[in-house]
Amino acid sequence: MISWLDIRNALLSGKPVLIFDSIEREAETDMVFYAGTIDYKKIAYLRKYAGGQICFVSGRLFREALDLPFLQDLIIKHPSIRELATRKPRYGDPPAFNIWLNHVATKTGISDSDKALTIKALSEIAALIYKGYMEEARDRFLKEFYAPGHVPILTSRGLANRRGHTELSVALSLITGLTPSIVIAEMLDEGQSLPYEDAKRFAIRNGLFFIDGVDIVAEAEKRGYLND
Amino acid sequence: MISWLDIRNALLSGKPVLIFDSIEREAETDMVFYAGTIDYKKIAYLRKYAGGQICFVSGRLFREALDLPFLQDLIIKHPSIRELATRKPRYGDPPAFNIWLNHVATKTGISDSDKALTIKALSEIAALIYKGYMEEARDRFLKEFYAPGHVPILTSRGLANRRGHTELSVALSLITGLTPSIVIAEMLDEGQSLPYEDAKRFAIRNGLFFIDGVDIVAEAEKRGYLND
Repeated sequence: MISWLDIRNALLSGKPVLIFDSIEREAETDMVFYAGTIDYKKIAYLRKYAGGQICFVSGRLFREALDLPFLQDLIIKHPSIRELATRKPRYGDPPAFNIWLNHVATKTGISDSDKALTIKALSEIAALIYKGYMEEARDRFLKEFYAPGHVPILTSRGLANRRGHTELSVALSLITGLTPSIVIAEMLDEGQSLPYEDAKRFAIRNGLFFIDGVDIVAEAEKRGYLND
Repeated sequence: MISWLDIRNALLSGKPVLIFDSIEREAETDMVFYAGTIDYKKIAYLRKYAGGQICFVSGRLFREALDLPFLQDLIIKHPSIRELATRKPRYGDPPAFNIWLNHVATKTGISDSDKALTIKALSEIAALIYKGYMEEARDRFLKEFYAPGHVPILTSRGLANRRGHTELSVALSLITGLTPSIVIAEMLDEGQSLPYEDAKRFAIRNGLFFIDGVDIVAEAEKRGYLND
């Protein structure tokens, strides 16, 4: 039995959890923090122990409230490179990337403290949106960031449409009663993704929750979170 | 005296060099490989010892031959987020980002081997362009990649217009007689950019060239490479 309450408490206390998507998809494990708890030490931890791209993740409501396009939609409108955006990755899903940005108060956007600053501010925007303050959220969003920058925003298409780490971590937030406002990075080994068994061992050794995507999908289905 | 020939040989033999931009700009050191020599071990080395965003860099000719937009130009055309693209980073320069992409043969695009594959293919496109095979380069480019992906392309605006690591590494390629086809990542410390003295110490300890941006600018000026 998975204790969603224990997972909620782990995330709220600033611990990462590990999420494996599925053997039929990327077969990758992502390290996942609750964005509201992020600081530069956690960004450095993600760099060191995950190694993949550090992304801010939120849900469909975040995208709609801010009227964010998917990057694919911007590229497809540009004639000279549109062909590049007509193809999908080999695992079949469309990319979840919206835009890359930095907070205006960052120095270059790339250091751990700068990334933490950008992500922390994005988590405040997400909190406003999920509490219903759409206009205030949109005002702050347009004033406080510049693009392109170094933190990608990924937003969910809902588990009914896509079963990536973006959708899984948004569903996990909703199941555990948290704002969809998450930081993820893929766990890498030298050369390849960290194999399933190694990711599981990392979780056990470090006292972290390891969650199988299939369990999130089942619970999200039960609770009606397949489209968020 | 800087030996540009020795730097050329280091790059061609697959060793990284370190480039410091300027105390008046980012004040950051980037680790730089020649893209033609890249493999998954070098990507893992960049992740471990640099830590910043791993980017493919080329020159103005690359951008023009492929008719690549800057990402800023795509964002500014999208009404709901255009304001984000009207601002500059605090160090004053416009971003050098074009698009993020993956090679179609990658699995997810994010592992070291996948990134090496994408970058290796980009280096072949750059080689075609700088040898004058524009049409073949453009055909291959549009067929072999999809976007958005995980490797950003940065292209130079010329040192006369911008003095970032993008422009410095393109000028370094030209000075050393190499194709502008480079992989860079910022050197990070926990929390902040790796301080100048620490980056210099890293170079000495590992037998790597450490190059000051100001020396590249002076040499590029002498040889007429300020707009490439």
